[in-house]
Formats: sequence, C-alpha cells, structure tokens
Amino acid sequence: MSEPDEFSIIDQLFKPLAGLSREARGLIDDVAVIAGDPICDLVVNTDALVGGVHFFEHDPLDLVARKLMRVNLSDIVAKGARPYGYQLVTAWPRGTTYAEKADFARGLKIDQDRYGLSLFGGDTVSTEGPLVVSMTMFGKAPAGKTLSRLGAKPGDRVLVSGYIGQGYLGLKALQGQLLGLSHEDVNEVISAYHLPEIRTDLIPVLRDHARSAMDISDGLLADADHLARANNLMIRLDLNRVPTSLSARAAIASGISPVALCTGGDDYQILCTASEMGAKALVLAGFYDIGACIGLSDDTPAGAELWSDNRRLDVTKKGFTHPL
Amino acid sequence: MSEPDEFSIIDQLFKPLAGLSREARGLIDDVAVIAGDPICDLVVNTDALVGGVHFFEHDPLDLVARKLMRVNLSDIVAKGARPYGYQLVTAWPRGTTYAEKADFARGLKIDQDRYGLSLFGGDTVSTEGPLVVSMTMFGKAPAGKTLSRLGAKPGDRVLVSGYIGQGYLGLKALQGQLLGLSHEDVNEVISAYHLPEIRTDLIPVLRDHARSAMDISDGLLADADHLARANNLMIRLDLNRVPTSLSARAAIASGISPVALCTGGDDYQILCTASEMGAKALVLAGFYDIGACIGLSDDTPAGAELWSDNRRLDVTKKGFTHPL
Repeated sequence: MSEPDEFSIIDQLFKPLAGLSREARGLIDDVAVIAGDPICDLVVNTDALVGGVHFFEHDPLDLVARKLMRVNLSDIVAKGARPYGYQLVTAWPRGTTYAEKADFARGLKIDQDRYGLSLFGGDTVSTEGPLVVSMTMFGKAPAGKTLSRLGAKPGDRVLVSGYIGQGYLGLKALQGQLLGLSHEDVNEVISAYHLPEIRTDLIPVLRDHARSAMDISDGLLADADHLARANNLMIRLDLNRVPTSLSARAAIASGISPVALCTGGDDYQILCTASEMGAKALVLAGFYDIGACIGLSDDTPAGAELWSDNRRLDVTKKGFTHPL
Repeated sequence: MSEPDEFSIIDQLFKPLAGLSREARGLIDDVAVIAGDPICDLVVNTDALVGGVHFFEHDPLDLVARKLMRVNLSDIVAKGARPYGYQLVTAWPRGTTYAEKADFARGLKIDQDRYGLSLFGGDTVSTEGPLVVSMTMFGKAPAGKTLSRLGAKPGDRVLVSGYIGQGYLGLKALQGQLLGLSHEDVNEVISAYHLPEIRTDLIPVLRDHARSAMDISDGLLADADHLARANNLMIRLDLNRVPTSLSARAAIASGISPVALCTGGDDYQILCTASEMGAKALVLAGFYDIGACIGLSDDTPAGAELWSDNRRLDVTKKGFTHPL
C-alpha cells in the first residue's frame, strides 16, 4: 500500500486545521489573506527549499537565496499583491562557514533591493541534514481585491505571463540531459531555472483585468488543471499558442517534446483567466492568450486539457510532484 | 579562528537586510509588527525546531508539533498580542509515514483549539536530513500597543510569569542526569520541557501594566541581560525571589544549583518590567517580582546580574546558546 502523496497529506491532515478561517482560503489558494485593514489586504505566502530536493547541494548560496525569494514572490505577485517584506528561516548544515552564510545574505540583499522588500524577522538554526530554507512573504493588495484561483467563468480566456518550459529545460541542462544546444541557449535556460524572472510590472494590469490567477510552479498543464477543478470547469489549452523562447524552440528541434515543456514545472509565470475584453488588455500588456475556459457538459469531469491542431493530446502526467 | 555565533550572524548578516523597516524593530525585538490597520497591530513571530537539536528524534510527533506551537505562542503572548493563526513548514525525513504525519497534525489540532488558532497556509517538503518544522505565527494587539523589549526605565520592577528552570530540569531528566527525584517530580519537569504552559490569561494585565516585555527562551539571566542591554540599564535579579516549583526545590535539595535554573533556557515564561504601581497589579494577577532596573553609573556596562543575600553571584554563562 503506497503512502498518500503531497496533495492528500494537505487534504487529509492540514485542511481540517484550517477549518473555515477566512484567511486560509480553504488551503486551496496558494496564499493566505489577512483582511482587516480598510485599505489593504495582507497577502501571505510560505515556501521552503531543501538541498538535494529543490536545489543542488553545490549550488552557490546566493542563487539559492534568490530562488527562495523568487518562488515566494511568484505566489504573491500572481495574486495581484505588491511584495513588501519577509520572515526567514535558515537551518544550516553543521560546518556551514560564515562566508557561505554571507553569500546567502548577499543574494537576499540583491533581490530584496530589486523587488522592494525588507527582512522583518525569522529564525536561524542548525541541522545535521541538508540546508533547509524557508520564507514567509507578505504582500499588499487593495482591500478585497486579492486575486484567487476562484473566479474563472466559462467563456473566459486563459493567459500566461511569459515563456513556458524554461525552468524545465534549465533543470535538464544541469542534469546533463539537454544536448545539441548552443552555449548561449544552455546558459539562458539554466539562468531561468536558478532565477526565474518575476513580473512585478504586471501587477496593475493583472489586478484590473484578471478574474482568477495563480502562479505556475508544478507545470502549466498541472496548474491549469488545479485552476479548472477549483472553478468546476474545463480549461482547453492550445499547445501551438503556448509561448516558448528561441532556446526552447532549439531544444524542440533537437528532440525535446513540446508537451514536456507544459508539464515540467518551475516556470513561475502567472496563469490567469479573464473575460474577452480583459484578455485584450492583458495581451496588450504582454500576456499570451493560450486557451479558454469551457462549461462542463453532463459527464465531463473538471480539469485541463492540452490540444494541438484540433486534437486532444493524451498526457498521462500533467506536472511535477516532489516525492515525499 | 572560530566562526561567529548565532547572535553575530544575525547582527552582521541579517540586520542589514532589515534596514530601517519599522516592521522589523531592528531585529532585536523577537517579533515583527505590521501596523496599518487602525484598530490592530499584526504581530508576527517565526520559530523553527530541528530533530536532534531542539527535540529528540524519537520524541512523539504530536509533542513536537505542540512544542513548535508553544515556542511561537510564547513570543506572541509576551508582546501582549492575542494569537490568531499560523503558517506551517514541515520538512519531513524520507520515509516518514502517514501515521507519523497524522500524529503531528493531531498535536497541532489539540493546541490550536486550546489557544484559539487556525492554520492559514504553508509548505510541506521532504529532506534527507532530520525533521525540520517551522511556524510563522500571527497575533493581534491594539494598534500601537504591542509591547517591546524597549521601554524599561530605571526604578522599574522586573517580573516573571511563573516557575523558572522547569524546562532545564526536564531536559536534564530526559538526558538521565536528574537523579534522586520522585517519579511525579520527574514527570512534571519533563512535561514542562515538552509542553511549556503559555499564559494567554495574562495578556490583558500585561498590556495594561508592563512597560517592556519578552519571553524567556535562552534562560532567565541571559534574557534579562538582553532586556537590560536593549534599554541601556542594569537589571539586578534576586535569586531568592525567583519562583521555583516543588520539583525544582527537590532537585536543588539533591544537588542541582539554583543558579543553573536561571541560566538553563526553555522556560517560556514572560519576563517584563513595570513601574512600582504596575508591578503591584502584575503581582496580583500572578506575576512574581524578582528584581529591579537600575540606572547606569559612570563605568558599569548595561546587563543583568544575579544577586543572593546582598552578594553578586559570578555567573560565567548566562544562558543557553545552540551551537551553529
């Protein structure tokens, strides 16, 4: 008998602890929202990274720090909130030197200056195991306007904020499994894996025009599936409209499946839905329109599908799940 | 050349990341305070526990969960804030079973019901190392009224909320180093180590009468020292007035030094200062008056001293510091 996966653990063990608290949003919405202030919602997100699981143990610690910041930023920004500050936990392996910790702090400094954050507090501990780092990030959104996974309607367009598959290709490259690409292309995807670009510039247009939104961390298809189920509808994505970089197209030309780019994870782009009108504004701001929300007919279950040339692709694994 | 300790790491590497942000309180005040709401301050605290460092790896996971909650509660309550909700990070060792995770969740449930909290969100990951758990807890205090380490004045009385040394004795007992005590006494101190009692009942009187406050986690003398330095004054504690349980008195009778109780850590009692009048109200509510704040004369440095029978005790190690 196999043990329940990550999603079952959350469903069975942690959802009962959230209960009906408004802040938790039923634990299905990536972030917590603390209302109360008549002007601002406080949007809260927590993500952790573990050496050997989410990054390579020999990765430079400034990059680990910046990735930690960016995976947290990704959730905050995807809800239309402006990032603002963070709590930090570092569990250092015994023997970590001062110089390594200073590298980590230097990485935080670079990105907190870039994104307008400051450190509010936290805890620093030691462990006999690999490095574990965790961040709880705070963002602000106009009161009552924090975006959610909920809100998509049949007829909505589905949009993404940028290239899909860059992180997946970066990971492949670091694992030595991406062959036949130029040095420049390899560097580009590795950089996207280490330091996904977080689109704080899109916050205003997202707030004004999106009906539902989340970030893509498990893979485009998997996260579209989560969004579709949360709204009890079908999302149909058009593979040919999914934006890919020149490097990704070179990778496809050398044998990587375009479907793999949509199921690989680590994108940290924004996925959102909007009315036809809203979608036009989002496209003008740089979003890509890649599909549609469709109401359920009698016996189709909610979920996301990937289509190409009017044919539904049969995808068995929609995204990446970390083994527990 | 030895590596800098925990306090130096925070000073040198993390304080620059907090900068002048009002929320961080210069990273010297245990909690972060997010103001903005005209009615409430949001008080934020983050503490982590690591297997083999902060708890024994064979400890039951419901107790680990409850201790995690209580060390966080301790900081929130000591600032006069009412606990309210939390973000949770669990980094599970590979092979942790569903039943063990369910134990952990059960422990959270018991204490969150007891203290009126709910889970807002978090992250669950895996590690090749020992269990690492971390919590960011939120509390609410009347706007602008969140207590701080700052605020003590010369002439203030110094008070604690309960018995000192229980956690220290519990740890000794678990290490097999506490001999000659009755079974009941041993059970009592072990229970205090696993599950320190958090005095949410004292929040109103603390808010009304304390001038400065913090929780005791590193040891009474060490934390009094932190409080004294933050306020640039001297704190003189009277060992004979430090409250101890019957179990602790039995331990002292069997050879444990009373000074060790004041430097052992893991008390999770509230340490505060108040005017003479305020101290009377606090004592009526159950606090113990154990010393005084004294202005600095020309060449005495700020800090805390332990006195007994009008004699200053020479204590070389004022508290417990986890090796990094």
